Amino acid sequence: MPRHPSLCAQRYFEDFALGEVFALPSRTMTDALFAAFQLASGDNHPVHYDVEYCRAHGMPHMLAHGFQVLIQTAAGAGLFPHMVEESLKGFIEQSSRFLAPVYPGDTLCSTSTVIGLKENSNGKTGVVYVRSTGRNQAGDVVLDYVRWVMVRKRNEASPAPEPIVPTLASNVEADGLGQACPAILAAGWNYDLSGSPHRFSDYEPGERIDHVDGMTVEEAEHMIATRLYQNTAKVHFNQFTEGQGRFGRRLIYGGHVISLARALSFNGLSNAFHLLAINGGRHVAPLFAGGTVFAWSKIAETAEIPGRDDIGALRIVTYATIDQPCAEFPGPAEKGFEDGVILELDYWAAIPR
Amino acid sequence: MPRHPSLCAQRYFEDFALGEVFALPSRTMTDALFAAFQLASGDNHPVHYDVEYCRAHGMPHMLAHGFQVLIQTAAGAGLFPHMVEESLKGFIEQSSRFLAPVYPGDTLCSTSTVIGLKENSNGKTGVVYVRSTGRNQAGDVVLDYVRWVMVRKRNEASPAPEPIVPTLASNVEADGLGQACPAILAAGWNYDLSGSPHRFSDYEPGERIDHVDGMTVEEAEHMIATRLYQNTAKVHFNQFTEGQGRFGRRLIYGGHVISLARALSFNGLSNAFHLLAINGGRHVAPLFAGGTVFAWSKIAETAEIPGRDDIGALRIVTYATIDQPCAEFPGPAEKGFEDGVILELDYWAAIPR
Amino acid sequence: MPRHPSLCAQRYFEDFALGEVFALPSRTMTDALFAAFQLASGDNHPVHYDVEYCRAHGMPHMLAHGFQVLIQTAAGAGLFPHMVEESLKGFIEQSSRFLAPVYPGDTLCSTSTVIGLKENSNGKTGVVYVRSTGRNQAGDVVLDYVRWVMVRKRNEASPAPEPIVPTLASNVEADGLGQACPAILAAGWNYDLSGSPHRFSDYEPGERIDHVDGMTVEEAEHMIATRLYQNTAKVHFNQFTEGQGRFGRRLIYGGHVISLARALSFNGLSNAFHLLAINGGRHVAPLFAGGTVFAWSKIAETAEIPGRDDIGALRIVTYATIDQPCAEFPGPAEKGFEDGVILELDYWAAIPR
Repeated sequence: MPRHPSLCAQRYFEDFALGEVFALPSRTMTDALFAAFQLASGDNHPVHYDVEYCRAHGMPHMLAHGFQVLIQTAAGAGLFPHMVEESLKGFIEQSSRFLAPVYPGDTLCSTSTVIGLKENSNGKTGVVYVRSTGRNQAGDVVLDYVRWVMVRKRNEASPAPEPIVPTLASNVEADGLGQACPAILAAGWNYDLSGSPHRFSDYEPGERIDHVDGMTVEEAEHMIATRLYQNTAKVHFNQFTEGQGRFGRRLIYGGHVISLARALSFNGLSNAFHLLAINGGRHVAPLFAGGTVFAWSKIAETAEIPGRDDIGALRIVTYATIDQPCAEFPGPAEKGFEDGVILELDYWAAIPR
Repeated sequence: MPRHPSLCAQRYFEDFALGEVFALPSRTMTDALFAAFQLASGDNHPVHYDVEYCRAHGMPHMLAHGFQVLIQTAAGAGLFPHMVEESLKGFIEQSSRFLAPVYPGDTLCSTSTVIGLKENSNGKTGVVYVRSTGRNQAGDVVLDYVRWVMVRKRNEASPAPEPIVPTLASNVEADGLGQACPAILAAGWNYDLSGSPHRFSDYEPGERIDHVDGMTVEEAEHMIATRLYQNTAKVHFNQFTEGQGRFGRRLIYGGHVISLARALSFNGLSNAFHLLAINGGRHVAPLFAGGTVFAWSKIAETAEIPGRDDIGALRIVTYATIDQPCAEFPGPAEKGFEDGVILELDYWAAIPR
Repeated sequence: MPRHPSLCAQRYFEDFALGEVFALPSRTMTDALFAAFQLASGDNHPVHYDVEYCRAHGMPHMLAHGFQVLIQTAAGAGLFPHMVEESLKGFIEQSSRFLAPVYPGDTLCSTSTVIGLKENSNGKTGVVYVRSTGRNQAGDVVLDYVRWVMVRKRNEASPAPEPIVPTLASNVEADGLGQACPAILAAGWNYDLSGSPHRFSDYEPGERIDHVDGMTVEEAEHMIATRLYQNTAKVHFNQFTEGQGRFGRRLIYGGHVISLARALSFNGLSNAFHLLAINGGRHVAPLFAGGTVFAWSKIAETAEIPGRDDIGALRIVTYATIDQPCAEFPGPAEKGFEDGVILELDYWAAIPR
């Protein structure tokens, strides 16, 4: 036995091979985890917390939150963050389609395939493109996604692989949406109870919505939120080490930032009740405890979903910031992003018609 | 779409009309929420956490904690705090009757009616009296309560409405108690296991009990505890804004203060096992993280419950303080309350006979 | 009613009698508590969180974590910490055998017998030896353990009892192991998914494993973790009092320290999937919030379990430290322990063969 084993062999850029397949461990999504997600993020979308609301719309049970499903399968019960714990430079959710609803008691696992590799020009890092499929215990595919992960090279001198960059659609098309969203009784949607009268037809491409609310994050909260995915990577948990590192602070897990942004978007988009797909996302800057997260959204597109007359789809781009209220809609700048922006997330959500 | 939508239209004093009825969203009370309440408050009453204990007394399952039921229906899955987020000055629980037990898996919703309005003499604020009914998914009424809510006027110049102040009983009468408390096998009550030998006949009106224990509250804890009710009002969560505000701190939600007080009362009243009704309550002063909550109680009254020989009722007035142990029973003073008092809560609880 | 009742009568050394039997309250282990344990500790052993993983190995459901079962029964829904709240000086888990699996929905209670008493030579404190039996709702014994508890004397002048020190085995023998561990399909164990290829035959007595990871603990986290056991002893919760006390800080509950150590040991021992028995443990030094816990383990012994060809047993001694990475394996010193060591824990765990 090696004297200093990592949880598993650490992977650097050279350790990924095109076409390689690897499986990640599973986790059972008990209703306790639905509650834990809500207690950590402040999310208020009733389809995740109110069984009667769901049954009134013909759903068999509460639906798991799309981001909880995505992050859980991406983290693979903590194994993936450990595989790249020493090498990870960053990641982007490139494209995700939610393909079947997930209910309390379902167990999710994922299988990943390396579909691309490209060394960066600096010769020190490279990008690994991974397609992952999330399945439930019956083998149904619930989620399909692509992400790119930037990792360090083990040895700068090692030769660069032939660059393969997969051709990815810039976004998920509307006709691919809706499979994870059970039919609802749109005529029965209670706009008084959601707190907002706005439905599909009330949103116009181009309009911008300041979500107003801010959520200050504490150390204990983000660590509890991150353990929800069984992610124990030191960058989030080990102040002894991180205190001597680049930031001097524990970095808040990107999965938690995404969850906070979606929770904050409820104010102004409360009828955009369920996630359908993710087109892309970028963790622009780090978030640390003590910071207050704000958010605003742009409606990039509205689309009917072929075969669905109960729901339409809003293509939403949400920006989250740290300590920066969003009345002026801080977003992309000439180079990069304006100060304070920590997240850009482009996704489709279902809204009653 | 307005550029800065709130979760829902903000309501000021002028926006409430006598006789108006509004519904608040529901939430399913999974056993995970029972556990979350206990983890946030430190409550130890076994009827909420021990299925076998409940079954030994003939109950079908664990009982939901009365304060969790009350706060959940009052907050209405977060919608009510948002309706008055900009206008709220304060509130008092005037009178609540718990009318049926709530079990894991029950979904609670509430309907509210405005039963009174009275502008304050300063012309800037007014009091709205609201009667609310909490129901489960079968339509059974589980809770009936009245609260008054003090909110700002939108416009000081707007005319004062005809004052209507409902006639409210000063307290719930003993013969109205007990409907939310299933029959217990009083002869089988295990006083060794509860840690206290004291039963109904051991308490005398007028006696005072120092609960001794103190509970220090952290920022993360109160925020998690508040999300339990889906309340995301900024005053509890947004340090960026609150740091520039009146207190410079995030205010701890009154619902959490009430829950802590009840949890602390276990020491000295551990056989007062279930809440029956609330006669009134006053949030005397704010609580902030870093503060340590202490509590003491006065037995205001003891009453037999007509038709019940298993339980009696204790009318308890509990005072909670911040950073003030209660050996000297700090409470009402000539004007207002003594230093350190943050809560006065007057309620009935069931205790074995 | 006394003016200052404790939760229950406080017990000092003189209050324990040889042969005395006392029962402690029960608690239902819902799957929400399994999740809460994981969210507090960072534990990642899949048998506690993944129903399909368990069923693939023929288990009926997820297994409760051994330390959660032990600490829950030891704390007795909070009653035992309260009994000795004023008198407790320290305790050691002497010997525990896990005798039956515990599943979600099981209710655990415990009965304790005083099997030994010995006053210390200083005449101010004494040791109480207690054997406890944990049972589920069917009356099956799930846990059997002995602990010694050091408590103050009420009155230094009171006569010392005849010292009775029970003869305890220095450790649990291998042939007594495995009853709490359902059979697994060892040939079907997925070493890729566990992240580690190491099985029973890969570990050698004497080898040492640095678990590498560190976990910084926050005040809110340890308080939430401690309430999981319904332990509300002030030393963990009351900064107002503790701020004026010996440490100036809230002391982190030993049960939480043990849980963190086991969680950290996953890195390097991830296939040691379930606890079988505890041979002994010592809380060497206190842990406070803000500290970062590290851990390393020594394999003290490996043993086949008579009648079992699916699992073997590793006897593991894990050391946890505060703010002290474990590359140099800090442990026992000439007198006591090296700086930074907070816990020594000697236990058996199951690992596939």
